[in-house]
Amino acid sequence: MKVIIIGHGPGGMTASGTLRIWDRNAEITNIDTKDFDLYHPCATPYVIGGKFQDLGNSEAIKEHIPYEKMKIKHLHRHLVEKIDRTAKKVQVRNLDTDERFELEYDKIILATGSYNTSPPIPGVKEGKNVFALKWLEEAEEIRLAAEKAKKAVVIGASAIALEVGCELAERGLDVTIFVRSRVLRQSFDPDYSKLIVDLLSAKLPEHLTIKVGENVKEVVLDENGMAYKVITTNDEELETDFVFAAAGVKAETTLAKDAGLEIGVTGGLKVDKYLQTSDPDIIGIGDCTETVDLVRGDPLSSMLATCAVHMGRIAAYTIAKPGELEFPGTLNNFIVPFSDYHVGSVGYNIVTAEEKYGEGNVLAVKIKTTDLPHFMPSAREIYFKVLVVKETGKIIGAQGIGYKLVTDNLNIISIAIQADMTYKQLLEADLCYAPAINEAIYPVTQALEMVARRLLRKR
Amino acid sequence: MKVIIIGHGPGGMTASGTLRIWDRNAEITNIDTKDFDLYHPCATPYVIGGKFQDLGNSEAIKEHIPYEKMKIKHLHRHLVEKIDRTAKKVQVRNLDTDERFELEYDKIILATGSYNTSPPIPGVKEGKNVFALKWLEEAEEIRLAAEKAKKAVVIGASAIALEVGCELAERGLDVTIFVRSRVLRQSFDPDYSKLIVDLLSAKLPEHLTIKVGENVKEVVLDENGMAYKVITTNDEELETDFVFAAAGVKAETTLAKDAGLEIGVTGGLKVDKYLQTSDPDIIGIGDCTETVDLVRGDPLSSMLATCAVHMGRIAAYTIAKPGELEFPGTLNNFIVPFSDYHVGSVGYNIVTAEEKYGEGNVLAVKIKTTDLPHFMPSAREIYFKVLVVKETGKIIGAQGIGYKLVTDNLNIISIAIQADMTYKQLLEADLCYAPAINEAIYPVTQALEMVARRLLRKR
Repeated sequence: MKVIIIGHGPGGMTASGTLRIWDRNAEITNIDTKDFDLYHPCATPYVIGGKFQDLGNSEAIKEHIPYEKMKIKHLHRHLVEKIDRTAKKVQVRNLDTDERFELEYDKIILATGSYNTSPPIPGVKEGKNVFALKWLEEAEEIRLAAEKAKKAVVIGASAIALEVGCELAERGLDVTIFVRSRVLRQSFDPDYSKLIVDLLSAKLPEHLTIKVGENVKEVVLDENGMAYKVITTNDEELETDFVFAAAGVKAETTLAKDAGLEIGVTGGLKVDKYLQTSDPDIIGIGDCTETVDLVRGDPLSSMLATCAVHMGRIAAYTIAKPGELEFPGTLNNFIVPFSDYHVGSVGYNIVTAEEKYGEGNVLAVKIKTTDLPHFMPSAREIYFKVLVVKETGKIIGAQGIGYKLVTDNLNIISIAIQADMTYKQLLEADLCYAPAINEAIYPVTQALEMVARRLLRKR
Repeated sequence: MKVIIIGHGPGGMTASGTLRIWDRNAEITNIDTKDFDLYHPCATPYVIGGKFQDLGNSEAIKEHIPYEKMKIKHLHRHLVEKIDRTAKKVQVRNLDTDERFELEYDKIILATGSYNTSPPIPGVKEGKNVFALKWLEEAEEIRLAAEKAKKAVVIGASAIALEVGCELAERGLDVTIFVRSRVLRQSFDPDYSKLIVDLLSAKLPEHLTIKVGENVKEVVLDENGMAYKVITTNDEELETDFVFAAAGVKAETTLAKDAGLEIGVTGGLKVDKYLQTSDPDIIGIGDCTETVDLVRGDPLSSMLATCAVHMGRIAAYTIAKPGELEFPGTLNNFIVPFSDYHVGSVGYNIVTAEEKYGEGNVLAVKIKTTDLPHFMPSAREIYFKVLVVKETGKIIGAQGIGYKLVTDNLNIISIAIQADMTYKQLLEADLCYAPAINEAIYPVTQALEMVARRLLRKR
């Protein structure tokens, strides 16, 4: 069996390694445009923050994978230009020599990823020091810019915008983040969006300013094409040493489209529960692939490494152990560190939930409590919210903000949603406790107790 | 409705507070022998370790609860001597004045807890500086003894013995722990019992010696009844400044037995899924109550605060919202800090699993990996094991040892077991990831991948 894996991010890497484990004889070829094996995209903000200063900066998150030993052929600096589905061949170009050749395949795993988009603001595309962040080289550029800079402007409300903003502020730059409407609107309710802004502003008061409801309308460049100030929608001017502008990413599907594969409504490759595209010999994974919202079954564009890695594993099963595992969809499980805070969510937020279940049919309950028992010296605050469908009691989402244990509580909700549990079933569940490690009554349990009070009182 | 709650540990406290929330009008009376409201038993080892030195030592884990404001009557230093189920009255004695009086009840929550047992070793019962640990006063006594001591002997293989041993060693005492057979045998497989001993010995090499397979056969006392040395089963002598001897706890059911309530095979109060004893007006919770192993349905004596708190919550529902929530049993979810390590388990270990499912019918898979991605400077090792029934693929237990994220991975398994998930379903599940917070492929997922390889390869 000849398997070609096109693209080598976290998804492609996972698919390649997992497939080797499951099929010792498959002829696996990875084809990738980079001149090194792999980098860890979720760690690029830490490069900017200087977290690997003693470890070679961006070099620290590059990874060499022993593909020779694994008997996997890995082609650096090669691009697949065409998939010929009839002849079952791909046309490959060596990016350094421009040499072209063909490779036969039985199966393809398409992991072409995504590309950055720019906000349509004058000066963003043209500015030499207006950065986005997807590639490792970009992280390194921003880090070098930050080392010489005192001020930075960040445009965007996404996790990556906030993460980069916090990393720069923690380095000591004066950072202003412009947020047109509200932060992290895909993952959080409006009150928690506001809470995140308030907490971060209070955490880094000297270096971080988050301007909500205000945007940059122009990035002003000097004669060398370097941004030196921005003009806001309030017609204020703000000087800056560079600009970071994140407008989100889009599925990279050029190759798939050329090959006539079906594209979903979200712009990603359409796949079935085994991640097979409209051509079952071509499997789609990661950012270039459309997934399904696990709760409601609607198409979803995830763009999370978590999801890519997960799909990579399942893809290997589809080829080597067909039918054994499915990819049922994702809850878009999300956790990110902003300064000392851990901020995350799973499943629905109140806006998407009410779209689905109707206004007034979803109960959202939030609590503020401590992550450890209050008598422990290292106890800190944690905010936690759960969403439940009133009629069925089914848990459909959660959001958390705290210093530790946010993932723990979110993962409990995540498994509960995936097991189709009601809030009552989760209230009956057993969890681990030691006062140095967590709370006897978890934040998730405290929140579900509140749900019970609201839903059972009425009876 | 008159409710009397007898005993005020974590279970009794939770029952009392939860009941107040659910029934604003209930006449709630807590009756307890202590002269203060509450202490946190799981935190007593930290008192011994001096973790609250600046916070008043044992005072730090005492808690005052605003019962007046909650309109709950709380009787300190009172003992319930008798339950008259026919007259629906309890006889109460004031421990300070010896005054006796009666109180009427509609419902009783029995939370009489457990009592320490001593190992049958000469000198243990008689020695004035031979300690056990259940009550706050004992923690304080041990702490004071530790402050003056250079050497300590610990007898026992339980979590509390290891926890106290590690706390004393971290204070700088030379500690020798005698373990007759192996540590934590209720929760861990033999290999992990050994691993825990090896890791702790390596972690605190100068102060901690764990002697496995050796026991103390006599604690030698001086003319004042003070232990000053022990004689081991190998006829070696070891000098010590004091001895800690933990032989486990037993359900305190004297009152229940006198009242003619049914006692289970484990020695605890027999209750149904709503925690009702053989008299439905009397509800049993916590250490004095027998629970059920959630996986196999067998009677189980838990003795964990986690379980007591959980039962306390459910007890309140049984009284105020009958039938709404059940206590389905426990997985004996267990986590404990030993020095910097977090050590925990849920559900079956291989010994109990093979007793239930037959030898050779359970697959146990273990991995050693890192808690964070290997490129993160704070990544540390984590050991994780999962147990699966070969025929059905059902997950039935897990064990973990690491510096962080052990609970997170164990709780995922815990919810999966309670949702009756197979290893495949959990492999299909979505979890949260950020490199500063956890691994992209969780230890639990890595272990389940190994399970898949073992179970699917054969096909």
